[in-house]
Amino acid sequence: MRVFVTGGAGFIGSNLVDRLLQEGHAVVAYDNLSTGFAGHLAEHAGRPGFTLVRGDILDPGRLVPAMAKCDLVFHLAANADIRFGTLRPHKDLEQNTVGTFRVLEAMRANGTRKIVFSSTGSIYGEPDVFPTPEDAPFPVQTSLYGASKLAGESLITAYCAGFDFQAWIFRFVSILGERYSHGHVFDFYRKLLADPGQLQVLGDGKQRKSYLYVQDCIDAMLLAVEKAGAGVNIFNLGTDETCTVNDSIGWITDSLGLRPKLHYTGGERGWTGDSPLIQLDCSRIRALGWVPGLSIREAVLRTLDFLQKNRWVLEKR
Amino acid sequence: MRVFVTGGAGFIGSNLVDRLLQEGHAVVAYDNLSTGFAGHLAEHAGRPGFTLVRGDILDPGRLVPAMAKCDLVFHLAANADIRFGTLRPHKDLEQNTVGTFRVLEAMRANGTRKIVFSSTGSIYGEPDVFPTPEDAPFPVQTSLYGASKLAGESLITAYCAGFDFQAWIFRFVSILGERYSHGHVFDFYRKLLADPGQLQVLGDGKQRKSYLYVQDCIDAMLLAVEKAGAGVNIFNLGTDETCTVNDSIGWITDSLGLRPKLHYTGGERGWTGDSPLIQLDCSRIRALGWVPGLSIREAVLRTLDFLQKNRWVLEKR
Repeated sequence: MRVFVTGGAGFIGSNLVDRLLQEGHAVVAYDNLSTGFAGHLAEHAGRPGFTLVRGDILDPGRLVPAMAKCDLVFHLAANADIRFGTLRPHKDLEQNTVGTFRVLEAMRANGTRKIVFSSTGSIYGEPDVFPTPEDAPFPVQTSLYGASKLAGESLITAYCAGFDFQAWIFRFVSILGERYSHGHVFDFYRKLLADPGQLQVLGDGKQRKSYLYVQDCIDAMLLAVEKAGAGVNIFNLGTDETCTVNDSIGWITDSLGLRPKLHYTGGERGWTGDSPLIQLDCSRIRALGWVPGLSIREAVLRTLDFLQKNRWVLEKR
Repeated sequence: MRVFVTGGAGFIGSNLVDRLLQEGHAVVAYDNLSTGFAGHLAEHAGRPGFTLVRGDILDPGRLVPAMAKCDLVFHLAANADIRFGTLRPHKDLEQNTVGTFRVLEAMRANGTRKIVFSSTGSIYGEPDVFPTPEDAPFPVQTSLYGASKLAGESLITAYCAGFDFQAWIFRFVSILGERYSHGHVFDFYRKLLADPGQLQVLGDGKQRKSYLYVQDCIDAMLLAVEKAGAGVNIFNLGTDETCTVNDSIGWITDSLGLRPKLHYTGGERGWTGDSPLIQLDCSRIRALGWVPGLSIREAVLRTLDFLQKNRWVLEKR
């Protein structure tokens, strides 16, 4: 198969590209390198069946020809940082909503009709049902990021109905692991390097979240594409566990041998649009036979280990 | 109150402007006159407290100053015709999703934080629950129009969370009445004028729909803005009745004294994204004391009467 991966030089994208090549597929990685890093894919340079195209999904002139002859698109390129939506509201709209539209139109131009999309558990807003299933009551959006991803999902399913596309939509919890480039482990580790004696924590530290290891995430996506054959296939993707922000701080500081004084900014939410509790019902993907390999604690520690060995990542942002 | 109405020269918008002026509010009607008609508002020309601004919601340079000092925005401007989404996919995205974003940003620039939005029952896609309540299971979009309106809703609620906006979102069935400018009564009447002996019907005629009279729609919106005080207020808006396409054809042809031969294009759906059954649970808006004044049959006949007396409308498109 010839597979097109938007955001192919990013955290999840580059891990996916490794796996697809390993499984014998031809891969076009498409990335504007705004947060992605070509170095993640350096080992594949010159390899037959692999191409890295530097380009923006908002640029049809570059996107459409790059996608030629691809059978399947993994659309992972996005503004993935939920926290800064209110500072730059146009960014989520352009990169996530309009960007997804451009990808769909490029697919239509190329006759490519299979798409995998990285959506988010944030689109459940602040649900009343936990763990939250895919058919939870119609949610109200609480973040510009969630709104932009729901708009992306909606466009994709409308293309399934209108243009006979087939879609696999994954609503991720936060993903952790090698090549991780933003999020709470990143933030805490960077702050602790600067000042090991104290740590500022957004919110009250009791926000309860779920996380998933990147290789488990990739396993699940590939399994679903293989086994789920409906026109529209929607899956939550997370572990059945949750942990609090304080749990994660404990694992990180124990591992680093630190005992920082914690300063909480206070409140149930770390930022506007933060959810005090995220726990997705993942029984639908589990019914296909998928089981995550790492616990949240193991995924946090694996991520910390990666950051310790790759401190350049901390300087990139 | 100073009220800004996007799509203020349109079907619902111009009826709303009449009512707002009648109730003593100052009104800025903003319309690009692509489907709206300045003639609907001609009687208000020169009236103190009334302004018609010709402008596009996608043009911030015109939109932002026009909205100055307004307390409340009714955002009704939209590409309202669901049927042609797959012919022009960018139109729903630009006019409905990006357009709503521009309106929200213009509000932010002006410090205006109350918004009323015309959404649609189409965002329920093809639900399993009838009548369909506002908190129905998370729907899958089946039309580009529905997708674009859900994206609009999502942006608005994210602005409520992020920027302390207050919103009233109405999920309309199809609206009928004076100044009606597109839809099934329009199409059937125009076809029958051209050839009274036969009528082509999209689908099998058994699609079951709900309709609402425009003045009942306006009553409901104004009542909800007055009485519903949450940050985000979402209401279905329709009658408790449904009728089939065939019922409506019967009322129209009886009223015109015609017996055309009916030609069905066949299938459960009239077009891609058409819903075989639309019936919204409107108990939430009824709990505020709202009762529709006209039945569907009365609303269809009122609309037909308007079209008979205003045949120029048929030529406008």
